[in-house]
Amino acid sequence: MNDMEKKYMLAAYQEALKAFKEDEVPIGCVIVKDGEVIARAHNKKVKKNCAVYHAEIECMIKAARKLSNWNLKGCDLYVTLEPCMMCTGAIVNSRIDNIYYGCKDPKGGALVSNIRFKRIKGLNHYPGMRGGIMKEECSELLKAFFKNKR
Amino acid sequence: MNDMEKKYMLAAYQEALKAFKEDEVPIGCVIVKDGEVIARAHNKKVKKNCAVYHAEIECMIKAARKLSNWNLKGCDLYVTLEPCMMCTGAIVNSRIDNIYYGCKDPKGGALVSNIRFKRIKGLNHYPGMRGGIMKEECSELLKAFFKNKR
Repeated sequence: MNDMEKKYMLAAYQEALKAFKEDEVPIGCVIVKDGEVIARAHNKKVKKNCAVYHAEIECMIKAARKLSNWNLKGCDLYVTLEPCMMCTGAIVNSRIDNIYYGCKDPKGGALVSNIRFKRIKGLNHYPGMRGGIMKEECSELLKAFFKNKR
Repeated sequence: MNDMEKKYMLAAYQEALKAFKEDEVPIGCVIVKDGEVIARAHNKKVKKNCAVYHAEIECMIKAARKLSNWNLKGCDLYVTLEPCMMCTGAIVNSRIDNIYYGCKDPKGGALVSNIRFKRIKGLNHYPGMRGGIMKEECSELLKAFFKNKR
């Protein structure tokens, strides 16, 4: 993990903290282009009452609006938890360059856990990916959230 | 294919025709609950300039809003083209009961074509699925669209 990766994951983590305070599963995301954070978002599933609004989807919608372009080539996405199938598909559709994630999601993760993304043939885009950035912090925040729920 | 399936797919096809007229890839979708079409949508990727807004995503957002519930249990989704990875993941996340699709998407389809959905283990929901409803009409509309583009 280099300093830039840490810096952007910290920004994603701060978004996850906002989700925590809003009683949403604490997952945060930022999108970076040319060294600048162009979009920040957190999970809004409960607030918007719709399963589509994961942090990554919210963030890609904002980034596309900011750039006035559905094609997010040149952008990197930082998210505190390994993306699910929906979000991974959206990242492919949006042509994001690289995905950086915090902790793994053994049950729903679609990069290296439940689905191994790189093994799927024939997709029209394959982002680079790297995990484990601030993984303890990202994981502890999720654990604290679910502990409160029991 | 029974009469009800044909009726709902025809409604999805009519949405696809709207996309065609708007110069979007012609894919349409409806969501049905208790025999009633509760949401209709078509592909808005170009209009909204965002790769998230496939017909199915648009339609699930509308259905969740209509029911004031992210959980779309009890709902069936009809779409003219086999869903992609993103949309299949969103259907799982939204707990849709059944997916009915028109024609297959050999390149991007995530139900039976490029990804075989039922082979993925450990997802927290597995919708039923049936394809091939009005497949010629759905396929011809896509061919006509891409022919115009060349």
